[in-house]
Amino acid sequence: MPPARRRIFINVDMGEGYGNFVCGPDQELLPLIDHANVACGFHAGDPLVMAETVSLCKSHGVKIGAHPGLPDIQGFGRREMALSLDEHTANIVYQVGALQAFLQRENLELHHVKPHGVLYGMMVRNLDIARAVWAGVPRGMRVFGLAGTHMETAAREFGLDFWAEYYADVKYRADGTLIVDRKKQPWDLDDVRAHVRQQLENSTVTAVTGETVELPVKEYPVSICCHSDTPGCVDVVTVTREIVAEINARNGY
Amino acid sequence: MPPARRRIFINVDMGEGYGNFVCGPDQELLPLIDHANVACGFHAGDPLVMAETVSLCKSHGVKIGAHPGLPDIQGFGRREMALSLDEHTANIVYQVGALQAFLQRENLELHHVKPHGVLYGMMVRNLDIARAVWAGVPRGMRVFGLAGTHMETAAREFGLDFWAEYYADVKYRADGTLIVDRKKQPWDLDDVRAHVRQQLENSTVTAVTGETVELPVKEYPVSICCHSDTPGCVDVVTVTREIVAEINARNGY
Amino acid sequence: MPPARRRIFINVDMGEGYGNFVCGPDQELLPLIDHANVACGFHAGDPLVMAETVSLCKSHGVKIGAHPGLPDIQGFGRREMALSLDEHTANIVYQVGALQAFLQRENLELHHVKPHGVLYGMMVRNLDIARAVWAGVPRGMRVFGLAGTHMETAAREFGLDFWAEYYADVKYRADGTLIVDRKKQPWDLDDVRAHVRQQLENSTVTAVTGETVELPVKEYPVSICCHSDTPGCVDVVTVTREIVAEINARNGY
Amino acid sequence: MPPARRRIFINVDMGEGYGNFVCGPDQELLPLIDHANVACGFHAGDPLVMAETVSLCKSHGVKIGAHPGLPDIQGFGRREMALSLDEHTANIVYQVGALQAFLQRENLELHHVKPHGVLYGMMVRNLDIARAVWAGVPRGMRVFGLAGTHMETAAREFGLDFWAEYYADVKYRADGTLIVDRKKQPWDLDDVRAHVRQQLENSTVTAVTGETVELPVKEYPVSICCHSDTPGCVDVVTVTREIVAEINARNGY
Repeated sequence: MPPARRRIFINVDMGEGYGNFVCGPDQELLPLIDHANVACGFHAGDPLVMAETVSLCKSHGVKIGAHPGLPDIQGFGRREMALSLDEHTANIVYQVGALQAFLQRENLELHHVKPHGVLYGMMVRNLDIARAVWAGVPRGMRVFGLAGTHMETAAREFGLDFWAEYYADVKYRADGTLIVDRKKQPWDLDDVRAHVRQQLENSTVTAVTGETVELPVKEYPVSICCHSDTPGCVDVVTVTREIVAEINARNGY
Repeated sequence: MPPARRRIFINVDMGEGYGNFVCGPDQELLPLIDHANVACGFHAGDPLVMAETVSLCKSHGVKIGAHPGLPDIQGFGRREMALSLDEHTANIVYQVGALQAFLQRENLELHHVKPHGVLYGMMVRNLDIARAVWAGVPRGMRVFGLAGTHMETAAREFGLDFWAEYYADVKYRADGTLIVDRKKQPWDLDDVRAHVRQQLENSTVTAVTGETVELPVKEYPVSICCHSDTPGCVDVVTVTREIVAEINARNGY
Repeated sequence: MPPARRRIFINVDMGEGYGNFVCGPDQELLPLIDHANVACGFHAGDPLVMAETVSLCKSHGVKIGAHPGLPDIQGFGRREMALSLDEHTANIVYQVGALQAFLQRENLELHHVKPHGVLYGMMVRNLDIARAVWAGVPRGMRVFGLAGTHMETAAREFGLDFWAEYYADVKYRADGTLIVDRKKQPWDLDDVRAHVRQQLENSTVTAVTGETVELPVKEYPVSICCHSDTPGCVDVVTVTREIVAEINARNGY
Repeated sequence: MPPARRRIFINVDMGEGYGNFVCGPDQELLPLIDHANVACGFHAGDPLVMAETVSLCKSHGVKIGAHPGLPDIQGFGRREMALSLDEHTANIVYQVGALQAFLQRENLELHHVKPHGVLYGMMVRNLDIARAVWAGVPRGMRVFGLAGTHMETAAREFGLDFWAEYYADVKYRADGTLIVDRKKQPWDLDDVRAHVRQQLENSTVTAVTGETVELPVKEYPVSICCHSDTPGCVDVVTVTREIVAEINARNGY
C-alpha cells in the first residue's frame, strides 16, 4: 500500500516548556494533531509541565508518546553529547518511566516513544546508539523513527512496533537524514505544502542540495511530524492538517 | 505490642552518587540491611547509578524503596526550597515512576517510598506539604515516616500503608523532630548503641537538649534508618545490626 | 529633596532567557530604559545569552548592572531556598565576577548590583542574608534595593552606594515589602500609571490591602523597576517612561 | 634547552567537589605541588567550593589557574558535547571571570588557564575549538596545553603565553594525544616513575600501542600534570615530586 493510501497521522512535540519558560502554543496545536510527543524533563519539560501537558492532551483526546532527550536543558537536547551506551539506555528507562507514572494517574496508555532532537539523529547514524536507546523501551512498544535507517533496524531487532515518520518542517540531506537546527527557522507556507505533499504522495523529498530522495517507509504506519517551537507553527500544522485531511478523505478515513 | 516485640528492620539510603561522584560504600552496607531507599535523580542518583543500584540491591536480596528528594543536586536535597504544592506532587510522581521503570526491568516490586532529607522534615512540620507529597505516591503503597507527625496523619488520609521509623545516626529535638544537617557528622559507636537501644527498647529518645521524648510508633511496623553518607557508616550499621539481631532473636524472628 | 525633584531612572531585568528559551522582548525595551539588570546564569541567563545581552545594552547606551539570583533555573529564582550564609556570599562573588568578565571585554564598567527575585525579598526580611549577599559585592559598588529595609541597613554597613527602588509592576504589602509572584501577571495600564505616579510624586504606595504606605527613599538616588517577563511589558515600560519623562522634564533633567 | 634542564613544575586539578560530593584529597596534595587548576563550576566545583579552594591554595602558596570545563556536572566534563564556537568562548569568559572574582578578594593574581577534560582533547584535535576557547581568555594570559597540537597553534595566534604540559597519570596514543577516561584508573607507581622520567628526561612517551612518541615541548616552560581524582593520587604526586625534585636539583633549581 503506497503511503498515500494509508491513514496519515500528525505528531507534534509538546510540553517543551521548563519552569517559567514557555515553548510552543500547545493549546492551539492540540486540536489539530493526533499524537503528542511529551518532553520528559531532560531536554525540556519538568514534572509540573508534564502533569499539565498530559492532562491537556487527555482533554483533547490526543494520544501521548514519550519524547526522551539528551540530558541538556540549556542545549534543548540539540547539542550532541558522547554518552556511554549504558547511559543512553538508563536515560530512556528513566524518562519513559517518569512519563508512564503521569499517564497511570490519568488512566491513559503510553502510545509510543519518539526520541528527541539530536538523539534521534545520533540513532539514525549509529546502530549502537539506536540499539542502546531502544533497549530502554518496554518490549512491544510502538516507536517512531526514520525508516531505512539504524532506527528501523534496531527497532526490529528489539521486537518494537516501528512507525515511519515524515517531517513537515525539517529539511533533509541527500542521504535522507534530517538537518536538526539548534533553533527552528520559520518556513514559507507554500514550501511546507510542497514538502508535505511530496512526502505523503510520493514518499520522496527534495534534499537541500536539490536531489530527489526516496523515503523508504515500506508498509509501516506513518505519522508526519511538526514542531511546536518552529516560528509560525500553528500555521505550519494547519496547512499540514489540510493536506493530511484531503489525503485521508480520499482514502476513506 | 511494644516496639521491642515486633520484628525490627534496617533501612539505608543507597545510590546517592552522581556521575563520577561517589557517596556511600553501598556494596559494604547491602549485606547488613533489609531496605534500601534508592535516590531518584533529584537530590542524588542519576539514571545509570539507579540502574546499577537496583541491580546491586537485587543481588543482595534487599528490598527497594523510592527515595525522592528536592530538585537540588548541589544541596543534596538538604536545603529547604519553597515549591508549590503541585510541584511537590508532580516531583514525587516523576521520581517514583522513574524508579519503577528500573524495577520492572528486573521483575521487582517497589517496596516503599521514603522522602529524602529536608523534604522529609518539611512534611513532618507542614501538613499541606505532607499531603502534597503523599498525593504523588501510588494508592496503597507502603511509606516510611516519622510517627506522631503530619507524615503519619497525611499517609492515613491517603490510605497509604504507614511504617514508623527510628534513626540510628540522627539526633532529635525536644519536640521529637529530626535535626537534618547538610553534611553528616561522625558518631561515637557507644552513642549509636545507646541511641539505638533506647529507641528500640523504650520507643523514647534523648533530645539534644536532654529531655526524654516519647516516639509514638503505635502498632506500625518499624524500620530503623542509617545513612550511607555518615562518616564511618559501615560501623554504624554494623552496631545497629547487632542490636537489631539481638532484639529480633529475643522475639523469635 | 522630595523624590519628585530628583532625576528618576528606569531599570529593567534583561537577558533572562536560557538556551533556546526566550524571556522578555529585550530589544524593544532597551530604547526605553536607563539601567539593565543582567541575569548571571543562576536563575536565568547563560554565558552566550550574557555575552549577547551585554553587547545589546552597549549598543543602546544602557548601563549594565549584575542581577544575581538563587541557583534555580527551573524556579527562575523565585522559589525561596535555605542556603548557608557562606553560600550566599560565594554565589554573589561568582555571578558578579562572571558578568564583569563580559563587561571588561567590551570596555564597560559595572554600573550596579541588584539581586533578583526571591533573593531580594529574603534580604528585605533577613539582615543576615542581606549582609551575606552584600558581602559578595566589590567595595564601594552601587547597589539597588528597597529603602527602609535590611537591604539598606546592610548596604550602609558595607560602605556600598545604595540606590532606592520603586516598582512599576509589583504590588506591595502593608509593611512595605514586595509581593513576588512566581509568574508575573498582566497589569491594567491605568493601574500602572497610578501606581507609578503615586510612588514617584508622593513616595507612598497603596498596599494590596488598601493602606497607604510610606516608602522611605530618603536622599538616595532612585530608579524605578519594570520586569521584562510581565505580560505586556513594553506597554508597562512605555507608560512608566512617559511619567518619568514628564517628572524629569519638570525638574530640568 | 632540553626539558631536563629547565625547572619543572607540577600542576594538579583542585576543587573538583560539588556540594556535598567530595573529589580528591586536596589538602594532602597541596604541599606537593606548584600550580592548582581550580574547577570553575561547570564540570565540577561550585561557588563555595571555589571560595574554599582559593583560600586553601593561598595558605599553601600554590599558584592558581582557572580550570574551565564543559557544562556537564553529571559527566564531569568528560563527555564530548557539540557546542557552538560562540558558546565555547562565552563559557570560558564566564568561568574565568567567576574565578577571578574569588582571587581578587584574596589579592591574588590568576596564574594560568588550563581547560579541563574532554574540552582539552577537543582543542587538541580541532583548531576552531582551540581558537574559540582561547578567544575567551584575557590577552597575554599564561595558558597550559599540549605542545605540537592546535592548542599551541591557537595560543600563539592569540598572543597567549603558552606552557607545555606532560602527564604523570594519563596515557598517550601513538599520535601524541591523551586518552581521557571518564573515570580515572589506578596506576602502578613504578609505571608512574617510568612514565614521568621518560617524559621529563627525553621528552618522549611510550604510547599504549608501544611506539615511542616525541613530545615537542620546544622552549616552552613545562609543568607536569597529575589528577586529584586518580585513585592513589597522593602516591602518584609524591613519586612525581621525587623525580621532579631530583631533576630540578640537578639543574640548580
